[in-house]
Amino acid sequence: MSDFTLHPRLAADTLLITDLPLCQVRLMNDARYAWLVLVPRRDDIREVYELSAADQAQLWKEATALGKALMAAREGDKLNLATLGNMVPQLHLHVIVRHAGDAAWPGPVWGQGSALAYDANQEAAMRACLEECLTQSGLG
Amino acid sequence: MSDFTLHPRLAADTLLITDLPLCQVRLMNDARYAWLVLVPRRDDIREVYELSAADQAQLWKEATALGKALMAAREGDKLNLATLGNMVPQLHLHVIVRHAGDAAWPGPVWGQGSALAYDANQEAAMRACLEECLTQSGLG
Repeated sequence: MSDFTLHPRLAADTLLITDLPLCQVRLMNDARYAWLVLVPRRDDIREVYELSAADQAQLWKEATALGKALMAAREGDKLNLATLGNMVPQLHLHVIVRHAGDAAWPGPVWGQGSALAYDANQEAAMRACLEECLTQSGLG
Repeated sequence: MSDFTLHPRLAADTLLITDLPLCQVRLMNDARYAWLVLVPRRDDIREVYELSAADQAQLWKEATALGKALMAAREGDKLNLATLGNMVPQLHLHVIVRHAGDAAWPGPVWGQGSALAYDANQEAAMRACLEECLTQSGLG
């Protein structure tokens, strides 16, 4: 399905949800947040500006459409969009629904405490939510 | 020049550089990093997806073009692009050139230590650098 190689750190920290036209959508395995990681299915790309103009447009489209749907579904207070990549060189975009009072609020989520892995019920519920978001966003 | 109201926290923490077609470009007053803040000159916008499609495209264009030029000028190791906004509700996009070994590396820059304000010489040098970047990027 995908023609790219996923960085092992991303593979270890996240769960596969689906492939969009450009990005593989993965769920950070941390039940404290509704936190997606979008990975453009292109090899050897570290920076957004290394993508073609068409791919850049598609990346932002997928991230904002999915983020908007997830904000509505989870009644979020703020959407965080970020590409950092200081630790994992493969280009990936964080899409995180934040709530006032969540585990890292109002700071950024990275490096705050330890990830709390989804249990089976939580994961099933989140997968159902994301399926609905993909439909709502027009991407799925 | 600008037809929008800047949040007082952004006004206090950053220095005005210039206005692009969409965004006001501001320099975080922290000499530890080459750190820009792009603020779309639109009132009452918190989320990227609240901007029109044309404005969204322009936001990413301004951020990536300027980020690419600044990465080259400063010989950066990684570009960080992020819109968080958990503390300041006005939509703003961080564009940060990172270097291996910088004050927060490899973590994110937010909340790490205290900002180190530019002195007059540093500020003049950075303003000259940014003027060149704006020209190089085709935005200035």
